[in-house]
Amino acid sequence: MIQISIIGSGNVAQHLIKAFAKSEETEIKQVFSRKKESLTHLIDPDKIVTDLSDLKEAHLYIISITDDAIAEVSKQLPFENQLVVHTSGTSSIAILNSKNRKGVFYPLQTFSKAKPVDFSIIPICLEAENEADYTILKTVSKSISNTVFPISSEQRKALHVSAVFVNNFTNHLYKIGQEICEEHHVPFEILKPLIQETAEKIKTLTPADAQTGPAKRNDSITIEAHLSYLTDENQKNIYKLLTQSIQNNGKTL
Amino acid sequence: MIQISIIGSGNVAQHLIKAFAKSEETEIKQVFSRKKESLTHLIDPDKIVTDLSDLKEAHLYIISITDDAIAEVSKQLPFENQLVVHTSGTSSIAILNSKNRKGVFYPLQTFSKAKPVDFSIIPICLEAENEADYTILKTVSKSISNTVFPISSEQRKALHVSAVFVNNFTNHLYKIGQEICEEHHVPFEILKPLIQETAEKIKTLTPADAQTGPAKRNDSITIEAHLSYLTDENQKNIYKLLTQSIQNNGKTL
Repeated sequence: MIQISIIGSGNVAQHLIKAFAKSEETEIKQVFSRKKESLTHLIDPDKIVTDLSDLKEAHLYIISITDDAIAEVSKQLPFENQLVVHTSGTSSIAILNSKNRKGVFYPLQTFSKAKPVDFSIIPICLEAENEADYTILKTVSKSISNTVFPISSEQRKALHVSAVFVNNFTNHLYKIGQEICEEHHVPFEILKPLIQETAEKIKTLTPADAQTGPAKRNDSITIEAHLSYLTDENQKNIYKLLTQSIQNNGKTL
Repeated sequence: MIQISIIGSGNVAQHLIKAFAKSEETEIKQVFSRKKESLTHLIDPDKIVTDLSDLKEAHLYIISITDDAIAEVSKQLPFENQLVVHTSGTSSIAILNSKNRKGVFYPLQTFSKAKPVDFSIIPICLEAENEADYTILKTVSKSISNTVFPISSEQRKALHVSAVFVNNFTNHLYKIGQEICEEHHVPFEILKPLIQETAEKIKTLTPADAQTGPAKRNDSITIEAHLSYLTDENQKNIYKLLTQSIQNNGKTL
């Protein structure tokens, strides 16, 4: 059994606690949380520590906290030469304090507290300083997920920026769609199968092959009609910029 | 059996031919196509006409062609007082020639020739000039789909503009994500489960509740890091505008 201690109590930390608890190859040794009560629904209270100095020996320490606290917390850890990783998409492996062996364990998914996730289909991006540590991370990852990738800190940046486009920005386009529907008293429900199919298509088609619509076919009459139909300047600006971008193939001319 | 003739041979027309052929309540009487060979893989060649004047009597005529040809084709139909509808998201019901009873039969989905569709989950938006015609359209729609909505021409415009945001523009964001990955030699595959989950969340959460990311949490350090990481001006502009829009809740301040 690989013994894992988790430092943090946010969305990602909580989903990891659940996933590792189910795995037969891992055991959660301890969890650090500033407030004990934020995790008592998930784990035996005896395993929750509120002081970093109470952390005992484990095979792997996973720091899953906000980016700007990682450096400081990793510095405060009361041990040396252990394997310590963070779960951030943006922070480099170098942000971790060098008194321990460093690594990154980045599950690329969007986590909400409200919605359960199936960890088996979540890609986990791993980085370590040496082969032996990578092997530990890989074993741990494979015990909860079917897809594990070696990804450098530099590559992870690309993934994180891309994730902002395909997740954060996409979700915001759903929001604008919903607002247009509400403004004109049409149920947003009608668009949900289209949203599903848009994502579904990407499983088998490239985004270029899946592209349809007035911008793609240079249908300027429809584009003008849409722009004059929209009442909000911000929505008009987004419509214009993305239409232009589709027409220019997503690149600056 | 409700007898339907379809005028057109494009994506939507072909998917409708397949759907009605499977339904036990409808029969495809004839299909009009300028080129007979474009439909012979789908339907008995004797049912394909290449001249509008060869169209025989049917209960319903569905015009599924490009928007700018609908008015002219509906004018050229060799009969009067029949139920004639179009399948366009953008054109008003009024574009149809008044010598026949008018209606709209708009399946809100993205159709690719390459990918089969499950019509049962596609919402069909209907409009007719009177109750009796609406009833015919509803019966026909229910024979192939589980979700049918009465939608006026004005409401249909809102749906179509929204569809551009949630489908065309979303797909384009996937493309940009793919390009960033390729530029940095990361497999785009890693992002596909995130794309699926982004769409999946909308089934149970509102877009506002599902929103996450640096823009949402006003994480200016990450936003600046992403902007300086992006190499393409167009990608930077889209990143800035959508980040601002998330921060302003999708509205002009």
